[in-house]
Amino acid sequence: MTQIDILQRLAATLAQRKQAAPTASYVSGLYAKGTDAICKKVAEEAAETIMAAKDGGGEHLVYEVADLWFHSMILLTHFGLSPEDVLRELERREGVSGIEEKKARQA
Amino acid sequence: MTQIDILQRLAATLAQRKQAAPTASYVSGLYAKGTDAICKKVAEEAAETIMAAKDGGGEHLVYEVADLWFHSMILLTHFGLSPEDVLRELERREGVSGIEEKKARQA
Amino acid sequence: MTQIDILQRLAATLAQRKQAAPTASYVSGLYAKGTDAICKKVAEEAAETIMAAKDGGGEHLVYEVADLWFHSMILLTHFGLSPEDVLRELERREGVSGIEEKKARQA
Amino acid sequence: MTQIDILQRLAATLAQRKQAAPTASYVSGLYAKGTDAICKKVAEEAAETIMAAKDGGGEHLVYEVADLWFHSMILLTHFGLSPEDVLRELERREGVSGIEEKKARQA
Repeated sequence: MTQIDILQRLAATLAQRKQAAPTASYVSGLYAKGTDAICKKVAEEAAETIMAAKDGGGEHLVYEVADLWFHSMILLTHFGLSPEDVLRELERREGVSGIEEKKARQA
Repeated sequence: MTQIDILQRLAATLAQRKQAAPTASYVSGLYAKGTDAICKKVAEEAAETIMAAKDGGGEHLVYEVADLWFHSMILLTHFGLSPEDVLRELERREGVSGIEEKKARQA
Repeated sequence: MTQIDILQRLAATLAQRKQAAPTASYVSGLYAKGTDAICKKVAEEAAETIMAAKDGGGEHLVYEVADLWFHSMILLTHFGLSPEDVLRELERREGVSGIEEKKARQA
Repeated sequence: MTQIDILQRLAATLAQRKQAAPTASYVSGLYAKGTDAICKKVAEEAAETIMAAKDGGGEHLVYEVADLWFHSMILLTHFGLSPEDVLRELERREGVSGIEEKKARQA
């Protein structure tokens, strides 16, 4: 998965744009509009993800999930957080869900 | 970002559970319930992400975005896709948005 | 509740605008854009309803629920349905939920 | 539209259940769980509305919009508001949008 450091580069770019003028880019403008505007985009992209799934998945679904992740990363950055925090949380759960899986298999 | 290969391991786990019996785990059960059930979870986690943002972000927001990404990965896997496809799409946009940024700066 | 026939008048107006040119009004334009565009608005207004609730309710919540109902009525009209169908369904459940309530009280 | 006073009766029932014990009914239990739990249901029903639209509308769409309106009425009641407030807001807009429509026709 050679593309994987894209999340790191994207996190760095999103943090930079938080410092830029609201007119500098789409992302800078979204930070300036504030929490509700970013949340509305997250809701919109979640709806488009669901509609792409109902349309049968494929490249359209990949595109909408990319939009959903992108806007949830903007939301994280808006609150001084990063995708790395999310990956750490997913990693933390890995062990836990492993145990749960084991239980499920034994049950 | 040492945690970054978590997405790869998670993708492998989610693909495995698609083969397992519906009773084997929460994820296997969700695949068996089908597209609408997975989409409902994506919508639910998007709503919880928004509510965590309205509550001020922090660890709660990280937790909900992790849930949102996790369930959108299940949706991708359900359609034979993977997080790698999403990362590739984000990488593809990187160049494009760079050009757009440049235009915005020049304007 | 003297305002209650507003739903009837609104249903009539929404049905009329379905016949009008896409440029005639916001609603006519939305019909022309199709199912996905209307659904996206429903998702957006649901998110704004949730955010207004998180902000403490009040007039803001009333405003957002009005937006949510309005756009769900557009969606119904788009599919040849009407708010009257929804009211009939709510009325049908009235008896059912009465029975369920009784059970809950007896339990 | 003889069914139209269903909203009044439903508003009265929902207000009553706010006073009842959390175990008395589904609605009473939802009030007790609080704002986030009710908002989560609104998000879920909005998602199901969208999926019913993507499946082609019909009775399924009527059913999901009924669920969406029902849970948004619970949210209103939770904040001491009522469907009547929403109808009044829709009525207030009627005049406004009429003017906007006129402008659009003249343009």
